[in-house]
Amino acid sequence: MVISRSECETLDEQDPLRDFRDEFTLPPGVVYLLGNSLGALPRRTAARVAHAVESEWGLHLGASWNTAGWWDLPQTTGDRIAPLIGAGPGEVLAGDSTSVNIFKAVTAALPLRPGRRVIISDLDNFPTDRYVVEGAAAALGDYEIRDIGTADGALRLEEALGDDVAMVLLSQVDYRTGASHDVAAVTAQVQAAGALMVWDLCHSAGAVPVDVSAADFAIGCSYKYLNGGPGAPAYIYVASRHHDDVRNVISGWHGHAAPFDFEPHYRPADGVRRFASGSPPVLSYTALNASLDIWERVDLRALRAKSVALTSLFIDLVDELCPGLTLASPRDADRRGSQVSYRHSDGYPVVRALVDRGVIGDYREPDIIRFGFAPLYLRHVDAYDAATTFAEVLSKELWRDEQYQRRLTVT
Amino acid sequence: MVISRSECETLDEQDPLRDFRDEFTLPPGVVYLLGNSLGALPRRTAARVAHAVESEWGLHLGASWNTAGWWDLPQTTGDRIAPLIGAGPGEVLAGDSTSVNIFKAVTAALPLRPGRRVIISDLDNFPTDRYVVEGAAAALGDYEIRDIGTADGALRLEEALGDDVAMVLLSQVDYRTGASHDVAAVTAQVQAAGALMVWDLCHSAGAVPVDVSAADFAIGCSYKYLNGGPGAPAYIYVASRHHDDVRNVISGWHGHAAPFDFEPHYRPADGVRRFASGSPPVLSYTALNASLDIWERVDLRALRAKSVALTSLFIDLVDELCPGLTLASPRDADRRGSQVSYRHSDGYPVVRALVDRGVIGDYREPDIIRFGFAPLYLRHVDAYDAATTFAEVLSKELWRDEQYQRRLTVT
Repeated sequence: MVISRSECETLDEQDPLRDFRDEFTLPPGVVYLLGNSLGALPRRTAARVAHAVESEWGLHLGASWNTAGWWDLPQTTGDRIAPLIGAGPGEVLAGDSTSVNIFKAVTAALPLRPGRRVIISDLDNFPTDRYVVEGAAAALGDYEIRDIGTADGALRLEEALGDDVAMVLLSQVDYRTGASHDVAAVTAQVQAAGALMVWDLCHSAGAVPVDVSAADFAIGCSYKYLNGGPGAPAYIYVASRHHDDVRNVISGWHGHAAPFDFEPHYRPADGVRRFASGSPPVLSYTALNASLDIWERVDLRALRAKSVALTSLFIDLVDELCPGLTLASPRDADRRGSQVSYRHSDGYPVVRALVDRGVIGDYREPDIIRFGFAPLYLRHVDAYDAATTFAEVLSKELWRDEQYQRRLTVT
Repeated sequence: MVISRSECETLDEQDPLRDFRDEFTLPPGVVYLLGNSLGALPRRTAARVAHAVESEWGLHLGASWNTAGWWDLPQTTGDRIAPLIGAGPGEVLAGDSTSVNIFKAVTAALPLRPGRRVIISDLDNFPTDRYVVEGAAAALGDYEIRDIGTADGALRLEEALGDDVAMVLLSQVDYRTGASHDVAAVTAQVQAAGALMVWDLCHSAGAVPVDVSAADFAIGCSYKYLNGGPGAPAYIYVASRHHDDVRNVISGWHGHAAPFDFEPHYRPADGVRRFASGSPPVLSYTALNASLDIWERVDLRALRAKSVALTSLFIDLVDELCPGLTLASPRDADRRGSQVSYRHSDGYPVVRALVDRGVIGDYREPDIIRFGFAPLYLRHVDAYDAATTFAEVLSKELWRDEQYQRRLTVT
């Protein structure tokens, strides 16, 4: 073995982030490798949410729009996310879902490039990104979507860029393979072609270094590595240089310049606040803010170092224990997010057999087995245990058991 | 006095809905007349939310998308709201904010009437309705907004309707005055002109009878009379006869026909599910569903009778105790929601003086004092106590105290 379990224990003792694991509730007897899908529950969250329910809502009711800061949650929460993605104060607004924010970003970006009628979309991107681009383009009318991707025959970005391109939407980290873009280089390439760059940070923020400061827009969710809870508020980043020129087409009263003056017509608030629309789901913001308390203390460079260590360790072990298995993720850590994926034609039953043995990964069509490594609460021994269990399931072909073939409704 | 406090106590003893008050946590020593803004906390909500946090999320994590029904929350929650608004199963989807749902409804409605380029909007409507219509019209392009209203010189609906009108958006109950439209008559009038009718139910659902079954679209919030919690998921109703023809421009993966097939292009789900966009904020849905457990047991006719009784009692008492005060709400109960409003040029300090004495109403520009009567948890003695305190504040001019003149940030 490239490393022993006791050597992994030693690495965990030396881990500068080791104490963060105690901040989380994790199910007993489980190695949870789906922090890239739904982050674990911070221990402090339950009490914070209970306080919001029982005191802020139950006792103080509508006064809490002022006294508990409910009204400003989209901005205050956004300002806490900003340092995690390389944005400045006043450039990030938290709210709505990722899909709604993609819609806002696309419909805000396109009018900034009048005369350019092409949107570059990525066939490898998470489906909602592509689907929402289609809806936004159809709504605004007369736009062409030009697909790029890594599949054979698909256009590459450099081939697709031209003086007809208004904007490009890409994910920093691929949700299936974990492959990571060079954000600075791609942003520069897109902007050099006169187009606007919109980044999806769902699979990168909270796990790998993110710096959107040169980009035009970005969106992301907070329920994966940021541990904000199921369906927690998403966020939108709008570079401050665009603030005076952009419109939010979902022009609700929370984004109005003077919402309580009840003016007859819409007048956008200054700054990123104009991207607010309706009332914020306070309980979901409260859970997210409990998690952001933890993030304030995280050294993001140590986080990245641990992410690389865990994913590299897992890859090395699987290389040794499962020869011939196809790694879908980049072997070069510089090109990889905090996720390791493999290709297997029976990926679905393999994942079900793993889950049955306490290793929680997931499956994505057509043949991808995903393991997410959330560096805040995972240990080197978790990577070790996951790799040895994975090897056992594959070498003994435990996944051939009939019970694992049956599809569950949602995976 | 038209009625004594002890007579009010007798009415409360005879109230068929009296036991519902025990379902709610209400701040001690307060008459809460802002259920039309933020509904009170159901007692059962805290435990339900805690279970969602600690068990569904904390212990079961992503498996809860299946096992706890998270994935289907927009539909299952919508189906529980449907009977409260006269809609059928599969016609209501819960999610997003009211503003986002207005945007979805407007952008879905307009393409159903090609060639008609006018949207009728109501200057008396809650601002976000008007603001979002402006944003949606600008996004789709080449639409005219024709304003109606009750102000001197404003167009009336019958004057504004014509064969160029694509849709009309009105609120069933006016947020300032509590005046109520005849939904059936207005819907018929609009549809006879060939236009689509979209109702905003924010200030009616859960307080007055609602029947949108003849309408084309409706939207509403669940945090007012429905007691779903601050910023709880809103909802959209789409008449089933339109389901095959409408598009959701915010075409996210949750509204896809086969979301886990990860198809390259958007293909809408059948029925109202296509109006889903992104991941649902689960904790906020959980709070709403706790409240909907209560609503399943409410006799809506008894609810309406009590609403009329409470608001009429309050009006009668204020008539007697505050002669000369201008009632802004209709005196005819058939034309009134569950809210009573008065006009007062110093409305803001009056409300602050009332709040200081435990009567929680609010103020809306330019001169409206609002009292909402949530019939599920208010008593006749509450109406009595509120009226006598209101009379004391006005007759003794207690509102002139300097402390009440200062504006709070949000009211």
